[in-house]
Amino acid sequence: MNISHIEHLGIAVKSIEEHRPYYENVLGWKCYNIEEVADQKVKTAFFKVGNSETKIELLEPTSPDSTIAKFIEKRGEGIHHIAYCVEDTDKALQEAKDKGVALIDEKARRGAEGLMIGFAHPKSTGKVLTEFCCHPKEK
Amino acid sequence: MNISHIEHLGIAVKSIEEHRPYYENVLGWKCYNIEEVADQKVKTAFFKVGNSETKIELLEPTSPDSTIAKFIEKRGEGIHHIAYCVEDTDKALQEAKDKGVALIDEKARRGAEGLMIGFAHPKSTGKVLTEFCCHPKEK
Repeated sequence: MNISHIEHLGIAVKSIEEHRPYYENVLGWKCYNIEEVADQKVKTAFFKVGNSETKIELLEPTSPDSTIAKFIEKRGEGIHHIAYCVEDTDKALQEAKDKGVALIDEKARRGAEGLMIGFAHPKSTGKVLTEFCCHPKEK
Repeated sequence: MNISHIEHLGIAVKSIEEHRPYYENVLGWKCYNIEEVADQKVKTAFFKVGNSETKIELLEPTSPDSTIAKFIEKRGEGIHHIAYCVEDTDKALQEAKDKGVALIDEKARRGAEGLMIGFAHPKSTGKVLTEFCCHPKEK
């Protein structure tokens, strides 16, 4: 599979505003984007890790039936998923499926920051909820 | 704080051999190092994420009283910690402490791959167990 780098790490939090000072004041990164993803019932906040291509994505539930709210209820706040940057999300999902990986998303869908994203199931990704994502192709 | 990138993500597993095929055959990365860290009672396996500077570190307990064994018992397998690459681990620990972060390690110590490492407590790092690490200075 053609993975270039970790695009982001998703971290489930009860409140972005509560955690933001740690990333801004201790780690020293500016929150460059806050965005609501309505169909996932989350508010997201993004920080670039140093000068690298990897981001930290804080995920705050906007509804008690958000998957993030359920994750926090079950496991507490903490790292929720790892997202790998691939050339083509649909191809990556198909390749994973062909190799026996159980998928959550059979097809790429639109996520935060305009990325095309798709999740594989942690039961076949080493117990780590795994997202594949790419920037949509320019037309 | 002078963080350049995520040096590695530590993932707690019961068995490296059980999870290795996912990283090698699905994600397509070669395990380039397996190392035992006696004082942490773990065996570690490393994979480079694509062509990036970030690694995945699988952590398998070598004793039931390893902190990794206790983590797995309590939370199951999954992401255990995030390690940020800094210029100087001792300075990063001190800077974090000065900003009110509770430390697990007051001083850097030797970790896997010869890195100088130090952990901060998840209660003050956004509920994510956080390691700062650097390559030891050349003399």
